[in-house]
Amino acid sequence: MTIMDKLYKESIQKGPICVGLDTTIKFLPRYLIEKDWSDGEKISEFNKRIIDATLDLAATYKVQIACYEALGLDGLKAYSETVKYARNKGKIVIGDVKRGDILSTATHYAKGHFSGDFEVDIMTVNAYMGEDAVSPYYEYLKNNNKGLFILQRTSNPSAVDLQNLIVDEQTIYEIMGEKIEKWGKPFIGESGFSSIGSVVGLTRPEEFLSIQGQSPHTFFLVPGYGAQGGTGKDIAKILKVSRCAVVNSSRGLITGHQKVECDDEGFAEHVRQATVAMKEDILQWL
Amino acid sequence: MTIMDKLYKESIQKGPICVGLDTTIKFLPRYLIEKDWSDGEKISEFNKRIIDATLDLAATYKVQIACYEALGLDGLKAYSETVKYARNKGKIVIGDVKRGDILSTATHYAKGHFSGDFEVDIMTVNAYMGEDAVSPYYEYLKNNNKGLFILQRTSNPSAVDLQNLIVDEQTIYEIMGEKIEKWGKPFIGESGFSSIGSVVGLTRPEEFLSIQGQSPHTFFLVPGYGAQGGTGKDIAKILKVSRCAVVNSSRGLITGHQKVECDDEGFAEHVRQATVAMKEDILQWL
Repeated sequence: MTIMDKLYKESIQKGPICVGLDTTIKFLPRYLIEKDWSDGEKISEFNKRIIDATLDLAATYKVQIACYEALGLDGLKAYSETVKYARNKGKIVIGDVKRGDILSTATHYAKGHFSGDFEVDIMTVNAYMGEDAVSPYYEYLKNNNKGLFILQRTSNPSAVDLQNLIVDEQTIYEIMGEKIEKWGKPFIGESGFSSIGSVVGLTRPEEFLSIQGQSPHTFFLVPGYGAQGGTGKDIAKILKVSRCAVVNSSRGLITGHQKVECDDEGFAEHVRQATVAMKEDILQWL
Repeated sequence: MTIMDKLYKESIQKGPICVGLDTTIKFLPRYLIEKDWSDGEKISEFNKRIIDATLDLAATYKVQIACYEALGLDGLKAYSETVKYARNKGKIVIGDVKRGDILSTATHYAKGHFSGDFEVDIMTVNAYMGEDAVSPYYEYLKNNNKGLFILQRTSNPSAVDLQNLIVDEQTIYEIMGEKIEKWGKPFIGESGFSSIGSVVGLTRPEEFLSIQGQSPHTFFLVPGYGAQGGTGKDIAKILKVSRCAVVNSSRGLITGHQKVECDDEGFAEHVRQATVAMKEDILQWL
């Protein structure tokens, strides 16, 4: 069973929920802020309590490394502890690192994010540099059961600057989708999905349905739920066609306690409730 | 004087040389490998000795973070020590991080790479996600005298997968070049170059001349010299039109000692000699 088979299975069993640990200090409950710890230590503790509280709800966790790089070495220690903690609990962890470089350099990124302190199961990749930015990972997909999510159609407003340009009646994001489908061919598992998935935002559901039709072997990581405007009904339209995606929510979940002004050890229960609400918001339409 | 003005000035005074510290263990001389230190400590010492030996030759140093991420926290400590060491010597340091993310996430990257443990002067950026991946840095360009190099036309073979596709008679890399020129307009310094530069490989000199003509306010970081096939004559053709670039060489310089099988403390002198040779190889044609 490949990692993408496992993610597919988890998305069916637990619901298509990706809990995004884009953690920053301002999201922490007061009892943690007041501890005599480094910022990284506080963030690490926050993440661990959230992981414990959502183990049965999350198909996967996505950890946004930028939030941790912002705090330097202390932050990256928290990143390392977070990904290790979730993986030790048997969870699939996506490193949202969006690395994009070529050949020997990408080989270093592969080593960095598919082994050692920062080991995750799947990493996000930017393929502006073409297949050279992807092929160095192939051996890790084959030999170490790792996976990729490649940026295809992102959910931000200026994504259109490049991704919606038209080449011979095809958009760049459609061309990227064809490439992802093609690069993934040697890595298709029993689920029918390959170990090279794609990142497509939820903000334009019609666009997504067309992308889905074009890419039958591609599993999707879908940002844009909640804070960025995508709804449960939007994602359900896609999942009714095939269960080809997990949907990420970060701020909408991990600030669940702030909405009810909970600042003590009980905070993670509110994050859990926000996760349950997201799951129900999607599943009610399926 | 903006950071790009300073880089322009350094490139005139010292020569257009960017020393690339893409350091891995296999490049180290034996006396360092045999030390009872962590890999990161050995790499950090190697880099510091190279910086000392090339201070008067390098317009700038580019540090490829992938090589350090590959070693986890120990490696990133070496990255941090390397960039701090070079900056403390008054040098301009380029963090070759190729980060590409949007809005709040890019703001975290800006904080991470323009302050604290990993602070550099200029970082490389991937703008597949459009201007949202660039605009979060504007305040750092304006208020903190920082700069960017955005990937435009990279030197790897599969760069053509995306970058050479044609939209309305323009290639994607030309469109990206127009955007870089436009985004940089508010950040043009006394040199005439903006603080938003571009990465264009040296492997196709004719393409480069056309890009240069299109982008009069853009300063270029040029990979592809030496190991990747670009020659001093190639870069001189471009620099004769305007002194708009620094040329990176990594392996070709920092393995200078291995070519003469020097494995002791004198290694850095051979790296220096390789740097002198690169400078002469370019300047002889100017």
